[in-house]
Amino acid sequence: MSEVRRDIVTDTWVIIDTENDSIPKVAREKKEPPDECPFCEGHENQTPNEIYAIREEGSPANKKGWRVRVIPNIKPILKIEGELEKSGVGVYDMVTGIGANEVIIESPKHTPAFFELSDEQVRLVLNTYRMRIEDLHKDKRLRYILIFKNHGSAAGASTIDHPHSDLIALPATPVRVKQKLNGAREYYSYKERCLFCDIIQQEIEMSDRLIFQSDRFVAITPYASRYPFEILIIPKRHSYSYVLIDESEVADLACVLKKVFSVFNNILEDPPYNLILNDSPNLLPRSDYWTTIKHDFHWHIEITPRIYRRTGFELGTGFYINRFAPEKAASIIRAHL
Amino acid sequence: MSEVRRDIVTDTWVIIDTENDSIPKVAREKKEPPDECPFCEGHENQTPNEIYAIREEGSPANKKGWRVRVIPNIKPILKIEGELEKSGVGVYDMVTGIGANEVIIESPKHTPAFFELSDEQVRLVLNTYRMRIEDLHKDKRLRYILIFKNHGSAAGASTIDHPHSDLIALPATPVRVKQKLNGAREYYSYKERCLFCDIIQQEIEMSDRLIFQSDRFVAITPYASRYPFEILIIPKRHSYSYVLIDESEVADLACVLKKVFSVFNNILEDPPYNLILNDSPNLLPRSDYWTTIKHDFHWHIEITPRIYRRTGFELGTGFYINRFAPEKAASIIRAHL
Repeated sequence: MSEVRRDIVTDTWVIIDTENDSIPKVAREKKEPPDECPFCEGHENQTPNEIYAIREEGSPANKKGWRVRVIPNIKPILKIEGELEKSGVGVYDMVTGIGANEVIIESPKHTPAFFELSDEQVRLVLNTYRMRIEDLHKDKRLRYILIFKNHGSAAGASTIDHPHSDLIALPATPVRVKQKLNGAREYYSYKERCLFCDIIQQEIEMSDRLIFQSDRFVAITPYASRYPFEILIIPKRHSYSYVLIDESEVADLACVLKKVFSVFNNILEDPPYNLILNDSPNLLPRSDYWTTIKHDFHWHIEITPRIYRRTGFELGTGFYINRFAPEKAASIIRAHL
Repeated sequence: MSEVRRDIVTDTWVIIDTENDSIPKVAREKKEPPDECPFCEGHENQTPNEIYAIREEGSPANKKGWRVRVIPNIKPILKIEGELEKSGVGVYDMVTGIGANEVIIESPKHTPAFFELSDEQVRLVLNTYRMRIEDLHKDKRLRYILIFKNHGSAAGASTIDHPHSDLIALPATPVRVKQKLNGAREYYSYKERCLFCDIIQQEIEMSDRLIFQSDRFVAITPYASRYPFEILIIPKRHSYSYVLIDESEVADLACVLKKVFSVFNNILEDPPYNLILNDSPNLLPRSDYWTTIKHDFHWHIEITPRIYRRTGFELGTGFYINRFAPEKAASIIRAHL
């Protein structure tokens, strides 16, 4: 028998096959390092000019000497120039595609995997995330800053294999973020407690979906996981926004992420995955609307291995089917820690 | 510049790259006909017993002599037996996985593609869709019957290459269907006209997204297409449910579908795709709630080529990015008709 589980945060449903015991896998992707990777140190002239970089003191912009480098996406889907204009096309509506599209290059070297970066390097990347969000939050037109990683072609990764994250700044709060904000707000107004704080407490007590807890974070497989081996990482300290992360949390999170991806590599053989930083919207343009957000939202990171493809069922319903129960995934991950 | 377009039916947003002119493609999938396809005529003993079949008069069930055959899915994600039970797991909720999971085998022969079936054979398939929906609507526990096709592994197709559709009957109306019902109802209460009837009229007038119209149907590329070459097929006659389709519409729809898939094959080289029949929910258990549905909903078919993979952006936002404008796709399809 399967279970149809409700994701309490987004109010969506996942059909979980609780009987299947075989670990789903996809074939390991072949990777050939490109001869002339534009993201490698020394190839700065092959990319647009940098927006931000962590550099050796005194090293000039767009030259060697950086540790983390942020550049505009060379094929942006949204552009920062222009006015935000709404218009109608008969019964339809559109807005112009204003926004920002950046690439965060995570290492000067063409290291193949995130978990092989040094702890310090991952800390620099995590601090760069914070710096970019803070900076873009100054622009009132930008309602939401999404940072994500695509690893492997099945996860939509570009052909450039050099470790990097993507950033897209949007002129509207996306629907999935709104679902999460609504779920968290409804829970808070009913219970007067943060939904995510309650999830942390319950998952530690029940322990069957708990992967591990560090001083500052818990890592779990969510109750209504959409994908086999989906992972949720939540800071233990209640905090509505990633921009409030402190140095001890950055250091701790760097270790947690490296641990998770190292285990992924061992169990699932370097699977395609996405990492998504679920942060609050930009409060600057909507300070009135979002006054409740500080106590009812709690930032978190989702990691979704893409070892299953959506069929017409998922497209037609908006439901997900997950053929490997999160309790089993957590147990396997714990055994490999 | 890109355009951020709103899907008026589901109230979701798609970022459309209106500048790109190169047609996105995926590599043609290699297909090896299985030696012992369980769906081929003569192999009936390799499948569960049939639920329904269109057969030569007098031919016994589960033997040769059928034209279309419906069987239970051998690996069902939902099962018809048992009671629908809701329960809580701490802060979470679940229901037991009650439902039905059927396979509609579209031809006794291992024909590789849908568009190569005869007109008459496609009519038999379309009539079988109606028969199965009507039959399952008698079960009050089943709130929604979804019929869909997965073609190609990137669209989540099974390893069995024999032409077939899938049917899943659900104990709840899925979220995407609810979005559509709500969008249609809101439009109707504001305009006192059917949203889909208005879309048909506008698309015929504007003509830039119109692929073609037959006597009974229009085929368009939707304004907020989520995928390159996405196609929407709508009956011209206002009708809230596929179960009301008449014989002349079945004959017309068979020709329309064959035409669309034949063009897909020519332009996109047999792309992976999903076909989704968007029907009304089962009115039996919710006749009170759905009294408005008869005038405000209008059944339709979505065909979504899967020539683009969702990245962390789509997962994190619920938005889609479509790198090929529907107006360009419609123009290319028209040139190949």
